[in-house]
Amino acid sequence: MQAMPEIDIVLVEPLYEENVGFTARVMKNFGFHHLVLVDSCAVGNAARACASHALDVLDGAERIGISEVYDRSSLTIATTGELNKTVCRSRRMPYYTPAEVRELVEDVDGRIAILFGRENWGLNNSEVGKCDVICTIPGSPEYPILNLSHAVCVICYELAHIPRGTYALATHQEMDSLYVHLDSFLDKIDHPDFKRENTLILLRRIFGRTRLTTREVSTLHGLLRRTEWHIDNKK
Amino acid sequence: MQAMPEIDIVLVEPLYEENVGFTARVMKNFGFHHLVLVDSCAVGNAARACASHALDVLDGAERIGISEVYDRSSLTIATTGELNKTVCRSRRMPYYTPAEVRELVEDVDGRIAILFGRENWGLNNSEVGKCDVICTIPGSPEYPILNLSHAVCVICYELAHIPRGTYALATHQEMDSLYVHLDSFLDKIDHPDFKRENTLILLRRIFGRTRLTTREVSTLHGLLRRTEWHIDNKK
Repeated sequence: MQAMPEIDIVLVEPLYEENVGFTARVMKNFGFHHLVLVDSCAVGNAARACASHALDVLDGAERIGISEVYDRSSLTIATTGELNKTVCRSRRMPYYTPAEVRELVEDVDGRIAILFGRENWGLNNSEVGKCDVICTIPGSPEYPILNLSHAVCVICYELAHIPRGTYALATHQEMDSLYVHLDSFLDKIDHPDFKRENTLILLRRIFGRTRLTTREVSTLHGLLRRTEWHIDNKK
Repeated sequence: MQAMPEIDIVLVEPLYEENVGFTARVMKNFGFHHLVLVDSCAVGNAARACASHALDVLDGAERIGISEVYDRSSLTIATTGELNKTVCRSRRMPYYTPAEVRELVEDVDGRIAILFGRENWGLNNSEVGKCDVICTIPGSPEYPILNLSHAVCVICYELAHIPRGTYALATHQEMDSLYVHLDSFLDKIDHPDFKRENTLILLRRIFGRTRLTTREVSTLHGLLRRTEWHIDNKK
């Protein structure tokens, strides 16, 4: 897994230690390890319970002032949970979506800090104003305010770039052999010729979009052979 | 906002009421309202505190058996947090990413259920085996197990399709007027002709990728005019 290097997740004045713990956990879930706490609440047992197997991230959290965050970062990103009335003020617009931030940070060769504000208040205008980019997580207008650790979750998920594990999808040749088998099977069940082409296309569509594995193709061949045997031995 | 119709978020035997509450909250954050609880832990004040302004989702949760979930749904999706050793067994593969699930559900006209398993155990093989599709949230191999409500967060975020608010990006004409102004400004500061074209391209690249708003273009014009005035009046 190739996590982005040097992305700091910065919590500004978090109020509830549970959120600090959950933040550490979800960071580690997506391969991030640099937690920065600015004027944080006390971090004790409740935070440790929520961090679960991410105690290394929690215990390794850096405690610095916000001015140091700005000073040492090549790119600072302010997250805001809501398109509130101040969105029209110049310092809060235009904003990026998390997906756009992902594209943006790909080109940055330097330290990146992503700032998350207080649970009850977010980041204030002065803090947002000093950031290079504003990122808004698009939420339902009915209730757009995410829990702090859920906001971190969305951002880390978008930035993680974790490749999927691989599994053996059937090759083109294997799929072709299945379609040939299905064609001959249609002979076996006296499928009318005039419907043949459309039926084969339909089967190809069905099996094409299901992304069969090698094993599944093999099982389907087996089922067809077994069925053919029963047809032949009933005659 | 156009939330998908009829997507049920199904928690199977959740153990901690805080997670049920956080799940209700993050569902509402992304525009989902149908919470289904299968053999849930008791849901009391701690859950209500975590649900915050999503008490309607929490209190409206449906309590049914898992067989009813399978029976009434056109598509059932099992979420698994980890590529564990059973991933190679046929019933757990191939799996979809959350982004692929988004594409998949777009075409479904019917009730969709997304199942999330127990905090300590996930979904068992029998539950996974009865689902149509398996979705794995790609996590760090170091610690791939997300907190339950964070897993719901990622799925709801992916499926939400919430359009961004709009803001007034500068028009093509406004941007052109800025580049014309910059060109004449280069005259004003005796910028060498042989560098002119490259410099203008560079400025166009800078301002092009920053996606200026109308207001920002207007402010830049103002700054250029003010600078020009000072140059003229020093001569």
